[in-house]
Amino acid sequence: MRISINANRCEPSPMRKFHPYAVEAEKKGRKIFHLNIGQPDLKTPEAYYAAIRQYNEETLEYAASPGMPILIDQIRDYYGRLGVELSQEDVLVTTGGSEALLLTCLSILDPYTEVIIPEPYYPNYTTFVHAAGGVIRALPTSPEDGYRYAYKERIESLITKNTRAILITNPGNPTGVVLTEEEMRMIADIAKKYNIYLICDEVYREFCYDEECGVPTMGRFADIADNLVIIDSVSKRFSACGARIGCVVTKNKELQQALLKFCQSRLSVATIDQIGAAALYSVDHEFFVRSKQEYRKRRDTVVGLLRQIPGVMVEEPMGAFYVMATLPVDDTNKFQYWLLEEFHDQNETVMFAPGAPFYETPGKGINEVRIAYVLKESDLVRAIDLLGKGIKQYRQQVMGLDE
Amino acid sequence: MRISINANRCEPSPMRKFHPYAVEAEKKGRKIFHLNIGQPDLKTPEAYYAAIRQYNEETLEYAASPGMPILIDQIRDYYGRLGVELSQEDVLVTTGGSEALLLTCLSILDPYTEVIIPEPYYPNYTTFVHAAGGVIRALPTSPEDGYRYAYKERIESLITKNTRAILITNPGNPTGVVLTEEEMRMIADIAKKYNIYLICDEVYREFCYDEECGVPTMGRFADIADNLVIIDSVSKRFSACGARIGCVVTKNKELQQALLKFCQSRLSVATIDQIGAAALYSVDHEFFVRSKQEYRKRRDTVVGLLRQIPGVMVEEPMGAFYVMATLPVDDTNKFQYWLLEEFHDQNETVMFAPGAPFYETPGKGINEVRIAYVLKESDLVRAIDLLGKGIKQYRQQVMGLDE
Repeated sequence: MRISINANRCEPSPMRKFHPYAVEAEKKGRKIFHLNIGQPDLKTPEAYYAAIRQYNEETLEYAASPGMPILIDQIRDYYGRLGVELSQEDVLVTTGGSEALLLTCLSILDPYTEVIIPEPYYPNYTTFVHAAGGVIRALPTSPEDGYRYAYKERIESLITKNTRAILITNPGNPTGVVLTEEEMRMIADIAKKYNIYLICDEVYREFCYDEECGVPTMGRFADIADNLVIIDSVSKRFSACGARIGCVVTKNKELQQALLKFCQSRLSVATIDQIGAAALYSVDHEFFVRSKQEYRKRRDTVVGLLRQIPGVMVEEPMGAFYVMATLPVDDTNKFQYWLLEEFHDQNETVMFAPGAPFYETPGKGINEVRIAYVLKESDLVRAIDLLGKGIKQYRQQVMGLDE
Repeated sequence: MRISINANRCEPSPMRKFHPYAVEAEKKGRKIFHLNIGQPDLKTPEAYYAAIRQYNEETLEYAASPGMPILIDQIRDYYGRLGVELSQEDVLVTTGGSEALLLTCLSILDPYTEVIIPEPYYPNYTTFVHAAGGVIRALPTSPEDGYRYAYKERIESLITKNTRAILITNPGNPTGVVLTEEEMRMIADIAKKYNIYLICDEVYREFCYDEECGVPTMGRFADIADNLVIIDSVSKRFSACGARIGCVVTKNKELQQALLKFCQSRLSVATIDQIGAAALYSVDHEFFVRSKQEYRKRRDTVVGLLRQIPGVMVEEPMGAFYVMATLPVDDTNKFQYWLLEEFHDQNETVMFAPGAPFYETPGKGINEVRIAYVLKESDLVRAIDLLGKGIKQYRQQVMGLDE
């Protein structure tokens, strides 16, 4: 029996390989601080639970394939508050932002067609693009330049006759880069000029900490309505990752029809979670203000502490809840194994996401890590402390440096 | 901007086109009896709601990508009771049987590779196969033969060097055909002989009304463990379609790895629904007995009444909750439009699923319909009464027959 070419082109989760080593470390009684996963620890608003507890239909039926009107209307109201008018057909509810991405790739990519993505990028993009037979053309960035990618010439130089889309995450995972309004406009113009899709993954939309951040959504540029595909989700916005509720927002009629065919084929998104998600969209604006304050404080803590570790290079991220850091070690992948197998400080150790899997280009990201600042303040302080101690000991014991 | 070739090869839902006409009819005050959809009306067991109401984690987190152990263990116990021993890795929880099918197709099909499917078949199979670039090779059946498809020579004659899988639904949708044990064994042997996958969609497993029905799952044939992929779901089994909880069951290690990559890319299945589904697997066996009795009674009612309509041809289905019938009209698609636009009896009319979209072969199924017997007895009686009256009037008024 054969496995498909496209499945073989996908990689297993780069985090997962450390899992057995983490389990072993825990068996030895080690406490692990997890900077490796983007699972926010903030409380999910009670509105979600209240709504699902009230559900009292005798039969748990399929919902409508494009999504439940109660949720679509909430999403439309939310976009209305951002200055984007959406009709009902412009929103297709999906099982998380993940399904939104997969169905978009299946709808627009043919084998060997290309998607331009700034690297480093969210590794699961690879699976979605490869599932459709597509190819990623990486737009290079550098840690020294804070991973900024909005350079017209560099983007245009990657466009070929096979380019179907530019895919960006704004605010960015893993880099925390947020585009300015001028940068957003420039990228929108490129999509328009070359008549390609612009897929904007905006699931971190509310997590934007600086004044230079551009408008909250690419949806504000009405002139690229036909090019634009927005990927959205309640996961990070409302700290409700386990609800698996996302959506695709597009005004492109042909694309709507293509997406709808895939939505119909899988019948519907979970009924109860759509009802819970609709309730989430009614939470007070104060919720976002508080979440943002909390993450901003954590960012400042993490970046401040990372800068105190000798040899660590880090640029302050403007958004999302990740920061990329360059560490003074030979290989962050090897360093992670060592932290789990050999290192501990008072029986505690730390995990991060090694940088290489965030890159398409071989050899890049070897000295980098992604740190998710989704733990509470005191845990973050201890986690970075452990990272610093680990770096020092690793440089001495493994790299043989006498400092 | 382009739409992908594979998306263009998919069709919109064949039921959906009638939706605006149904809405118009309802505006005129017409009551519509829905024999067109497979949404069971039985009560979802209270265990589902009790479990989700008890959930009290502060943060609704991602679940594990392969599924929550609490649910996987329940599924393993359930298969154990059917005589199939599964290890934890043999089960991957999915968002409904739909995702199970899509991920399976993405994992095993390359462009232009072939899947053999007996026709008529569940129309969404087309989308899953086409999403992966595959081609359906239809295995023909006939209404006169009760849509039976387990004929060795016919199946073998469709196998080419590009065949990757045989896909069957057992018990069958839309035909209600259930394989005998000998037939199951014969199909298993073909998969083994030609070294191809055997995908068994067994979501209607418990709905089996006759003694000739074979063993409850193809999983009982241990010698084809490497070929076998079982598609499963709680939707029909527990009348919980809106939970969107299904799974892929396979012991093929390579396929497990491929599927797991796709599962990891979409992070997880909805947490709350997995907890609810785990509780469903604990409901008393009595639930299945009652459901089966109820559907059996409905089947007998529907088949009995259909046989009283002059010119209608119907074979008694052995399982699931559908029956295919051949009607004495020129085109069941046209007849359905007419029933919604022109016909009513005391302001009531009826919908079914026209047969043609269940066929790959052009021109087939034009006189056929699929009827879902998922309404309560009294509604079924009235619905078939309306169908009979509609047929009579349509033959006179539209077909110009003087009877």
